[in-house]
Formats: sequence, C-alpha cells, structure tokens
Amino acid sequence: MLEKTTRRKIKTDTFHCDFQHRLNISHLGNSMLNVADTHSTERQFGMTYLNTINKTWVLSRLAIELEDMPTEHAEFYIETWVENAMRYFTRRNWAIYSTDGATTYGYGKSIWAMIDTVERTPQDILAVDGGRISQYLCKDKECPIKDVSRVTMPNLTKYSEFRITYNDIDVNGHCNSMKYLDHVMDTFPRQHYEKYQLKRVEMAYVAEGHWGELVRVYTGAESDYEHNFRLVTLQDGGIETEVCRMKVKFIDKVQQ
Amino acid sequence: MLEKTTRRKIKTDTFHCDFQHRLNISHLGNSMLNVADTHSTERQFGMTYLNTINKTWVLSRLAIELEDMPTEHAEFYIETWVENAMRYFTRRNWAIYSTDGATTYGYGKSIWAMIDTVERTPQDILAVDGGRISQYLCKDKECPIKDVSRVTMPNLTKYSEFRITYNDIDVNGHCNSMKYLDHVMDTFPRQHYEKYQLKRVEMAYVAEGHWGELVRVYTGAESDYEHNFRLVTLQDGGIETEVCRMKVKFIDKVQQ
Repeated sequence: MLEKTTRRKIKTDTFHCDFQHRLNISHLGNSMLNVADTHSTERQFGMTYLNTINKTWVLSRLAIELEDMPTEHAEFYIETWVENAMRYFTRRNWAIYSTDGATTYGYGKSIWAMIDTVERTPQDILAVDGGRISQYLCKDKECPIKDVSRVTMPNLTKYSEFRITYNDIDVNGHCNSMKYLDHVMDTFPRQHYEKYQLKRVEMAYVAEGHWGELVRVYTGAESDYEHNFRLVTLQDGGIETEVCRMKVKFIDKVQQ
Repeated sequence: MLEKTTRRKIKTDTFHCDFQHRLNISHLGNSMLNVADTHSTERQFGMTYLNTINKTWVLSRLAIELEDMPTEHAEFYIETWVENAMRYFTRRNWAIYSTDGATTYGYGKSIWAMIDTVERTPQDILAVDGGRISQYLCKDKECPIKDVSRVTMPNLTKYSEFRITYNDIDVNGHCNSMKYLDHVMDTFPRQHYEKYQLKRVEMAYVAEGHWGELVRVYTGAESDYEHNFRLVTLQDGGIETEVCRMKVKFIDKVQQ
C-alpha cells in the first residue's frame, strides 16, 4: 500500500513568478490541486478513475494561508493528505515548506464533494470502490491554520466584470477554481502589492461558471487588509447566479 | 564544462490542461522559457547574472510549431540550446518530445536581444563575460521547422480590448510574452477548438506593455486556419503603440 501522503518537489520557475519575483498565488494553488490529483490518482480514487464511473470530485471550499511565498528559483515541497472522509464530504490538507525543512511557506485546507457527472447529484464517497479512500486517512497530521469557513460576507455593490474564455476553462469543462482567484487578484493595483503581502485566501465554490458567461465580481473592503468578493454569472434578463465567494487578507509587507 | 543543451522532464499536470485534456499552449510556452532560463542561468549568462550588471535578455521573436500536444498526465521532455550568437542577436531553439522518444510534439525557434536595463539600449552579447555564451553554441542540432519570420500582416480593423493587470506582469516588470498569446487564444470560441487543433504560433515582440495599459487586439482571418493579430497599447489621445504581432495557424483536428 502506498503511503498516506504525497509530496512533490517544485521549482519556483522564473515565468511562474510575479513582478516581485515571488511565486504567483494561483500557480501555487493549481500546483496544490495538481499534487492532490497525483495523490488521488495513484491511490485509485482520482478523477481519472472516477470519470470511468461517471463521477468526479468538486472543490467546495479552499483556504490557503501563507507565512511567506517562495522566491524565484527556490525549490520547495508541496505535501498533501486526506484528513477525513464522510459520506458526502472529504477534507484534504496541504503543507508547503522548503526542501531543507527550515522554512514553512504555508498550509491549505479544503472540503470536496463527489458528484455524478451526468445527474450532477451528490454521491456517497464511502460507497466508491469499497470505501478505498478510508484506507488513506491521515487524521492526526498537523495543519495549524484556521479552518476553512462558509465564507459569509456583507452586501456588496461595487463591481467589475469579465467574460469566461478559453484559458479560464479546465479539464472539468467549467471555469477553473484558481482562475476566479486570478480575476480577483487582478482587481488590486500595483501600489497595493508593493505595500502588502498576501496572508490568506478563502474561497467557497457555489456553482459552475461556463464558457462565454459574463461574471460580475462584486467587491468591498473591510479595511486595507481585508477584502470580500462575491462572483456571480449574469443570465439573460440580468438574473444573477452566485458562483463563488472569496475573502482575501493581506498583512504589511515583511522586510526581507 | 556543462553540456551544451539542457532538458527537463515535465509532467502534463491536470490543472495545466485545457477543456480537451491537452496542455495549454501558454503553459507550454512558459515552460519553454523556464527551461531556457535554467539553461542560461546554469551557464552564467542568465537573467539572474545579467541583472547584476544592469542587463537583461529580451525576447524578440518566437515560433512554436506542433505535431501534437501532450495529453493529461503524459510526461515529456523540453530540450533547449543556443544555435548561434551574434553581436546583437542570439538564436535559441527547443525540441519537445515524449520521454520514450517515440513522439515528437514539436519545436520552437526564437531570437533574443540583450539590453541595458537602465538605458534600454542594445548591448553587445559577445562582450559579456568574455563571450561566455559562445562556448555553448550548438550550431548543427536539428530543428526542422520553418524559421521565425518578421511576422508581417495585412491591415486589420476588427478588434477587442483588455487591460494589463497583476497576472499579466512577470519578473521583468512588463506584460509576459505568453500572456499576449493567452489573450489572443481567448478570442476563439469553443466551436473553433472543437474543430481545429493548433499547428503553429509565431510572435514578434516590438515594445513592452505596462501595468494598467489598455491593449487593443486587432484581428483578421485569412481563412479558418490562419489568423493574424496585431496588439497595440493605447495612450492618451488614442495614440497606438505596437507591442506585438502574431500569426496563429490551425489544422483540422487529427482524430486520435
């Protein structure tokens, strides 16, 4: 039997970095999802297997909290494991740390559901392949960040908009989870990134965004440090369908 | 002395794939640039060293031609080498092939200049560090695609627009070369990708795009298979500055 956790060494490539020579947050997020995909695929409960029985994983909530962000050319590990599996939800965590173990960059926590790809209905996770996932639970491994919440927020009225296009769509055929984060991070001006560094992002996914749909990004700041986002797709007649909610927290930039 | 070429094994991660479970072209392109950065950095003529003497590489032209595109979970190599170095230009090529050598995915050709990061003037490449780059030329290695051209095109009048934001900017402080390609690929509808597959992209970079600038993407098709793009930034008063030109060629989708 394979180990309960999977970790992968990742190089902070130059062209996955931002203007401050630090790894782009959505690249980190997609790398976390890629390592999760490797972990579940190797243990036969990944999307590749699930698709053969008309099922797939759906990311419901995700929190990433950072002490620091890997800088250009740095090598680091992303490690992931499943904390728990219930009938309709499973919890997956991540740790992100330097290859020498001296620096902890951060952690991630997430909640996933399993759905039928045709009916789009919730599926019993523990019924798949005799509850295979239960063999790989890692209940006691430390993930010392605040739990991922339902991501509640005040009423927001200010907004910008974007249309979902080719690069937004992933293998699931709808807008990639991290692409919503890209569009949210794109709302901040250069001066904001020069003054603050990202501390925590928290996302709750409600519905799927599809190719061609117009997304309205409602935004409101509780302070310079805390920003709320509510993303909705706009249907004919102006009817809004909520696709996701995000909280993005910054701290004053730590001098290196 | 290190070998003249560098190659890196790359896994086609799920969340770097598009809706057809094939690697995203701009992810492939940035991976090619990342392997090029590793190649030049390890041989002491990369941006990391050049920045210490106020110089940097500037991508002038790039062509990528594909036989096929790696599918989800496939492992492949990107290999790169410098074909030639002259006073003001150097030629860098790439080969992209499966780890068992059985499948050639494609090739890349490019032309780079070196500039002073303060004065923005062209620099004598052969004068840097005693012409170190000349030790690593690989003049005879095969790269069997058409040469990268000046990318000329007819007058174009139809356009869409986007604004350069956080995620467009790379470590050089201006819009990333592959992000222009992303914005171009985003102009094609889903039906186009279902019918055709990408054969060749060719890009000529003219000037740099900066954070906050509005980019107008002029477009015109010579046929369903051949598309021209001319990207300009718009200054106050509507003055246009050309930033890049692209040709994107498709072929009928090869049935797998």
